[in-house]
Amino acid sequence: MAHETTVKVRFSETDALGHISSISYFIYLEEARTDFFQELGLGADIADWKIILISAQCDFVRQGHFNQRLKIATEVSRLGDSSFMLAHQITDEKTGELIAKGEAGAVYFNFKKQKSERLPAELKEKLEKYLGKDKREHKA
Amino acid sequence: MAHETTVKVRFSETDALGHISSISYFIYLEEARTDFFQELGLGADIADWKIILISAQCDFVRQGHFNQRLKIATEVSRLGDSSFMLAHQITDEKTGELIAKGEAGAVYFNFKKQKSERLPAELKEKLEKYLGKDKREHKA
Amino acid sequence: MAHETTVKVRFSETDALGHISSISYFIYLEEARTDFFQELGLGADIADWKIILISAQCDFVRQGHFNQRLKIATEVSRLGDSSFMLAHQITDEKTGELIAKGEAGAVYFNFKKQKSERLPAELKEKLEKYLGKDKREHKA
Amino acid sequence: MAHETTVKVRFSETDALGHISSISYFIYLEEARTDFFQELGLGADIADWKIILISAQCDFVRQGHFNQRLKIATEVSRLGDSSFMLAHQITDEKTGELIAKGEAGAVYFNFKKQKSERLPAELKEKLEKYLGKDKREHKA
Repeated sequence: MAHETTVKVRFSETDALGHISSISYFIYLEEARTDFFQELGLGADIADWKIILISAQCDFVRQGHFNQRLKIATEVSRLGDSSFMLAHQITDEKTGELIAKGEAGAVYFNFKKQKSERLPAELKEKLEKYLGKDKREHKA
Repeated sequence: MAHETTVKVRFSETDALGHISSISYFIYLEEARTDFFQELGLGADIADWKIILISAQCDFVRQGHFNQRLKIATEVSRLGDSSFMLAHQITDEKTGELIAKGEAGAVYFNFKKQKSERLPAELKEKLEKYLGKDKREHKA
Repeated sequence: MAHETTVKVRFSETDALGHISSISYFIYLEEARTDFFQELGLGADIADWKIILISAQCDFVRQGHFNQRLKIATEVSRLGDSSFMLAHQITDEKTGELIAKGEAGAVYFNFKKQKSERLPAELKEKLEKYLGKDKREHKA
Repeated sequence: MAHETTVKVRFSETDALGHISSISYFIYLEEARTDFFQELGLGADIADWKIILISAQCDFVRQGHFNQRLKIATEVSRLGDSSFMLAHQITDEKTGELIAKGEAGAVYFNFKKQKSERLPAELKEKLEKYLGKDKREHKA
């Protein structure tokens, strides 16, 4: 199962080369992540924030442009005891063409104690549903 | 008649004071403008861009926050021969509470000749439909 | 007396029309403000923040471009008991050519009590030194 | 040899968790890259742009904050015939503490023909001077 978010490319997210700024892709990936976290019951409220980002990555496959509708599909690519990796695919909503691929590493984090904590069982179960197909088989 | 655009506040659009960055409001106002221009048949294509922004303004009325859904209502507040002003109201989509008010000045512009041009009659007619109530009466 | 800040236009601050995004000007004006506030002994520390922005405005005079060095001169254009206005001029550092003019309204604010407070006498004195020439005469 | 760029964290580059937004690191890395490219005699002029970014990555090691001065050291971590990788270290300018590490993949690109080209010998020589120590030995 993959979580899906849709964004429309804003004018301010382009740059002088005429396409989407490389930086804007990271805005879209963060948008996909925060959407996904809310579906998991996490991160709607800043006072109760539980996730710290430890890495972000993006491969730019095709140039995207102003006003384009992009679909960002997010899966869990690795699931540890207190951390997990997300894999994202950004595609053109209409044509399905691959625009970019991203990855992010996240840690379940206690901001008061400033240290990582084990993922609660219930949350881990939810994350497992989004484990990419290959990963689930590998796990079995 | 007012044009309406909805945005959801992204995490990256907040700042360390815990609310929406003052700069993000201008992202939302640009988003409302480009949406509006497309409804007018303008500005979907960068190669055929016709509008130059000459001013932007925003009054910050209430603090907005991450994940809030905001409605941006856009009207024409002044309509000249080659230029016009837009007035925006940003409200909380759910409660209707006023969050910010904005204004922008735009000129119909020929990028090849690098000079302003008279608004075509058809476009001016469309813009007139969005003239704020007070302005229409004043006009009559 | 005017406070001066210099910025160099970043690639990500341009847009697909090939020039500085209208939104980036507000980044520069905020940069000039926070620099100015630190010169006044304010706002280096978020935990002790004292200023709330109530309005921001910019007139876009000339198109600016990637890599351009811009000077932002900031003066106090109005000084009240608990609030003040700033006026900014953005010029090309090399040629002195005017690129944009901005304005911002700020209130001295107690974040704990969530209400405005009178500007301390010492701060008001400092702000007075930056009152634009016309304003000082008008005051006298 | 490493190329060095310094940035000061802007207020708008923080987010509601109180630290630098994960997205802002990619702004700093792009700033370091465009600076580096200009030192190589590339990329001061958009009309003559030669580099396309194919990937960007960042590991977030320590939380950075508003007003912090960051040094970004950039080396070449891999040098191919028409492409190269850059490795970045973002450190606190004062303490030298590591804040983040980044990487970017770039291709020498002919925008008119829309295809990659071999790196000119002169440019390749310049890039070689920035090859990280390990890479140079490996090469020898």
